[in-house]
Amino acid sequence: MSVKKVAILTSGGDSPGMNAGVRAFVKTALYHHIEAFGIRNGYDGLIQGDIQPMGYDEVANIIQQGGTILGSSRSEEFRTQAGRAKAYQQLESRGIDALVVIGGDGSFKGAEILATEFPALKVIVLPGTIDNDIAGTDYTIGYDTALNTIIDAVDKIRDTANSHHRVFFIEVMGRDTGFLALHSALAAGADDVLIPETHTNLEEVANTIKTQYKGKRSAIIIVAEGDDAGGSGDVVAKMKSLLPKHELRSTVLGHMQRGGKPSYFDRYLATALGAESVLQLLKGNNRIFIGYQDNKIVVHSIADIIDKKREISAEANTLLKHMYNQH
Amino acid sequence: MSVKKVAILTSGGDSPGMNAGVRAFVKTALYHHIEAFGIRNGYDGLIQGDIQPMGYDEVANIIQQGGTILGSSRSEEFRTQAGRAKAYQQLESRGIDALVVIGGDGSFKGAEILATEFPALKVIVLPGTIDNDIAGTDYTIGYDTALNTIIDAVDKIRDTANSHHRVFFIEVMGRDTGFLALHSALAAGADDVLIPETHTNLEEVANTIKTQYKGKRSAIIIVAEGDDAGGSGDVVAKMKSLLPKHELRSTVLGHMQRGGKPSYFDRYLATALGAESVLQLLKGNNRIFIGYQDNKIVVHSIADIIDKKREISAEANTLLKHMYNQH
Amino acid sequence: MSVKKVAILTSGGDSPGMNAGVRAFVKTALYHHIEAFGIRNGYDGLIQGDIQPMGYDEVANIIQQGGTILGSSRSEEFRTQAGRAKAYQQLESRGIDALVVIGGDGSFKGAEILATEFPALKVIVLPGTIDNDIAGTDYTIGYDTALNTIIDAVDKIRDTANSHHRVFFIEVMGRDTGFLALHSALAAGADDVLIPETHTNLEEVANTIKTQYKGKRSAIIIVAEGDDAGGSGDVVAKMKSLLPKHELRSTVLGHMQRGGKPSYFDRYLATALGAESVLQLLKGNNRIFIGYQDNKIVVHSIADIIDKKREISAEANTLLKHMYNQH
Amino acid sequence: MSVKKVAILTSGGDSPGMNAGVRAFVKTALYHHIEAFGIRNGYDGLIQGDIQPMGYDEVANIIQQGGTILGSSRSEEFRTQAGRAKAYQQLESRGIDALVVIGGDGSFKGAEILATEFPALKVIVLPGTIDNDIAGTDYTIGYDTALNTIIDAVDKIRDTANSHHRVFFIEVMGRDTGFLALHSALAAGADDVLIPETHTNLEEVANTIKTQYKGKRSAIIIVAEGDDAGGSGDVVAKMKSLLPKHELRSTVLGHMQRGGKPSYFDRYLATALGAESVLQLLKGNNRIFIGYQDNKIVVHSIADIIDKKREISAEANTLLKHMYNQH
Repeated sequence: MSVKKVAILTSGGDSPGMNAGVRAFVKTALYHHIEAFGIRNGYDGLIQGDIQPMGYDEVANIIQQGGTILGSSRSEEFRTQAGRAKAYQQLESRGIDALVVIGGDGSFKGAEILATEFPALKVIVLPGTIDNDIAGTDYTIGYDTALNTIIDAVDKIRDTANSHHRVFFIEVMGRDTGFLALHSALAAGADDVLIPETHTNLEEVANTIKTQYKGKRSAIIIVAEGDDAGGSGDVVAKMKSLLPKHELRSTVLGHMQRGGKPSYFDRYLATALGAESVLQLLKGNNRIFIGYQDNKIVVHSIADIIDKKREISAEANTLLKHMYNQH
Repeated sequence: MSVKKVAILTSGGDSPGMNAGVRAFVKTALYHHIEAFGIRNGYDGLIQGDIQPMGYDEVANIIQQGGTILGSSRSEEFRTQAGRAKAYQQLESRGIDALVVIGGDGSFKGAEILATEFPALKVIVLPGTIDNDIAGTDYTIGYDTALNTIIDAVDKIRDTANSHHRVFFIEVMGRDTGFLALHSALAAGADDVLIPETHTNLEEVANTIKTQYKGKRSAIIIVAEGDDAGGSGDVVAKMKSLLPKHELRSTVLGHMQRGGKPSYFDRYLATALGAESVLQLLKGNNRIFIGYQDNKIVVHSIADIIDKKREISAEANTLLKHMYNQH
Repeated sequence: MSVKKVAILTSGGDSPGMNAGVRAFVKTALYHHIEAFGIRNGYDGLIQGDIQPMGYDEVANIIQQGGTILGSSRSEEFRTQAGRAKAYQQLESRGIDALVVIGGDGSFKGAEILATEFPALKVIVLPGTIDNDIAGTDYTIGYDTALNTIIDAVDKIRDTANSHHRVFFIEVMGRDTGFLALHSALAAGADDVLIPETHTNLEEVANTIKTQYKGKRSAIIIVAEGDDAGGSGDVVAKMKSLLPKHELRSTVLGHMQRGGKPSYFDRYLATALGAESVLQLLKGNNRIFIGYQDNKIVVHSIADIIDKKREISAEANTLLKHMYNQH
Repeated sequence: MSVKKVAILTSGGDSPGMNAGVRAFVKTALYHHIEAFGIRNGYDGLIQGDIQPMGYDEVANIIQQGGTILGSSRSEEFRTQAGRAKAYQQLESRGIDALVVIGGDGSFKGAEILATEFPALKVIVLPGTIDNDIAGTDYTIGYDTALNTIIDAVDKIRDTANSHHRVFFIEVMGRDTGFLALHSALAAGADDVLIPETHTNLEEVANTIKTQYKGKRSAIIIVAEGDDAGGSGDVVAKMKSLLPKHELRSTVLGHMQRGGKPSYFDRYLATALGAESVLQLLKGNNRIFIGYQDNKIVVHSIADIIDKKREISAEANTLLKHMYNQH
């Protein structure tokens, strides 16, 4: 049973590189004489039948654009059986055999339930989120760009921190995971990092700052938004009594972290995964997640990777220890 | 009476381009066989005598660096007569004839008082602040870079705004003045801008958003931090009842706006003003401010430009009217 | 006699900011209930009648894009009377009263002849070129972005020049004028600059390099492509015998200089000039050039600015002298 | 036998991230109470004894800098036994037990010979080159940054290519290998790529361009400098007769590709490898190469990786096929 018509949507928070994934999906489908469709605004658009054919023109000049040209949303209706039935009808009525979803863990669960309820539909999911919090892949689409955006902002803040001898607490995205915080801290040469995976002891942080500050003109601390000591504003409020002589400042990088032109790596990764999704459909595979592990494309069943948590690597922890402690 | 030894300091909030100004000051002094000195950490460092000779090596490879290699601070002690007496002693004891200060309005007042109290010292001030809120000049050192940093961030946020059909309120620096907000809004293609110079009517803002939003995928509103409706967080809180169906988001760009490599224009402007400060000293001028008006270097007495406010230009207001209203 | 329908085209080499100019033209026209049209591919497209109505949707999300969405070309046919007659017919048959052209000196001449031959047509021209070689304006649309692109590239090359103690000759655009070369050299902290406006003596250049090189890790020389000593490759070939012990390298920045997101200033300038072109048509003006001089919008007759050359400013020459000579 | 004093040098072409590697080496050494030394200007500086102690101050604020603060060179003298003997004496006389070298294949061979001749010296090498042409590692320090620099330049050139409907041949670095060319082409959405690993048939290239050009406004072809059809200038000369109706342009990106702030990934990779070099010395390892394969740090003997060639991956070839052919 070969595939004749395939559709793609982007779901959840947008991330840089999603467009490169859509482009590669479309070009690979056309190469194999398969009709490609794009669904606007995620599962909501699917339910409403906001579905268009995609050709070379539709994917020209999008590889370098941030965000997603298809739009995204979080859909309440898709959480209901009735909503998913409507969604399936929209595909079925157009003769679309397969659905590819670029998104995060929540989007994958929706895709898996849809596939369970409507076995005639083939479903493949690809990791698209800046948080890098998906099991089964070393990198998600958008993570590398977000890290580059963050270290570029930290480089700018360091200028003013150095000029005024200040201690900056910079909050980056990451409600449940500290990947962005930890890896941007290592690459930005920050002096400490606070992440949700470990309990934060503010007295220890204060001691680190005092030690670091001696030989330097300033200090930079990266704070994951989900750290148990609070966001950067909370942390500064609490630290004032511990560091009464230092000038403490808080800054929240915010939504800027999601945008921007995708980096080389995110364009390459998204191209590889988007193309592979079509090749997997041609092989007859279904209900799979395609990721990138050990520097190559890998395939897992969707069920195997949802609700799993990736852990901070031992490698990163070793680096942390050696880069931050100057005793 | 020629000058033999001259010193420079940076004061107040740092701004990109200050280093280019210091470099041009030093190179021009050396060209004319004048000894150049750099004072660390603004007026505080002056009081404490943190003063070093500056040669070609000290200003090599700094033109492209953000912040100020000299450091900056806000000095309480310099506000006292005793503090200024100490400051003068530090210069006098080293035989330094002239002091150049790069900073903002507050720094200029300090310089003017010092010059009044110690007429033997020649004093020249240069505008260095991202806010562009100095009279007597069309542009301050750092303003152009900050505008470029802001529009780059807004471009990134637009990606995610478009993907999710959201309305973003983006807060930029500017406690008393809306130059950064208004000009970044025009250049970023924002849909509205809220500035301290005019009273903000949130119902009108809501109507503009409703109108704009029709033909577009999202809306971007720039908010100056000193707007009378509050910062972007406050504005979003107040707007929720006026725009119940729109997804509203607030983001504060923060300290990142002060940093980064200086733009072409800020490097050029700072080079022109820094070099001119030495040439003016060679002409025997004193207690002057050097600015850039009508596309050329201009000189004013310091007294004439402090405590004056620059106004939003008629040109900018005309552009606002035509770019934002789509009735 | 009011205008009812107006059209715009971009001509000659493209430059960053042209899209912002087109957008402002369209929005201002619509604000005043005037129909706006866009002509594709410059005068060629005009002759062929490649003309579309422009609304808010056509100019959404273009302010930040480099190049020109309308396309550009150099048209041989428009140089003939027959070609211009066809061009006029295309406008006349659609009831278009006025034509706005963004381009350089050659494009202006074409516009002026068209206006002379067909007095019923109103013609306005705006300066769009990265070379800044237009009389009647201090800045052309695209010049500021090109300068920022150049100094960013020079900053990168300086990294490798410093690492290897090399002397780099970097060629920038500018066949007849040295504005880009001279101003980028000043802002990049280059060690010398070779421009078409002055005779280049390579022995003096060699001496400057020897002097500069002593206290530094490398040297950077900016070469305008039209310098009388040749491009950077020629210069390196000739310099080898003069500097046998130095490692000399040539690099040509090339077409990259024309592209990229427009800077703040180019977006602002293009917005101001694009909007003003409509306001001038409303005032009944014709055969005018709109520029930006002394920090404000100015109007000249087209005849007054074509075939005129802008000169390097005395200010820039003063800076050159002080920044490059370290004797 | 523990290590007490360790030294590091950078050799061959500089690459972004080398400074992050030096920093991590120094910080990790200090953490383990080992004295760290920096050797200036590669093997040449080693022979001349240009060796300084490195502390926290020496590596502050360098992680974000391109190039190498230690300087680099290609040394003829080190190729002689006498030169290497001098080099060893410089280390031995200071009591330095171990040498870490960041560089490319040529630098590794030198290190391996030195280690063979002087078994008392421990030697570790790390891959630092933008070309990614080292066996035993998936990524070299600097490769990711160079790819980002290239795609950023191609994005700019695409602006002007689109505006003028031109075909651009863009030459990127890579004398013997096409990694930079092929991967930048995939990520930039280029229309074809010419690499040394495969024979280039210009008629096929012309056909691809004709096909691609139909639905697009322009075409971009990436050319590795070592392609058998020649550099981009040669290719354009040869293509003119094959594509007489297209406007063909050549541009050479040049030395800019080596510079710039290192990307996130290069900072992370260099930090990981630099820290690991010290940890490997603590384990007593010698004559090893440390790389990054399958997403983790790996160790090989130096002898195993020199003179080996990495091949273009099957994955990249699959992507090429699907992204470039639109028949």
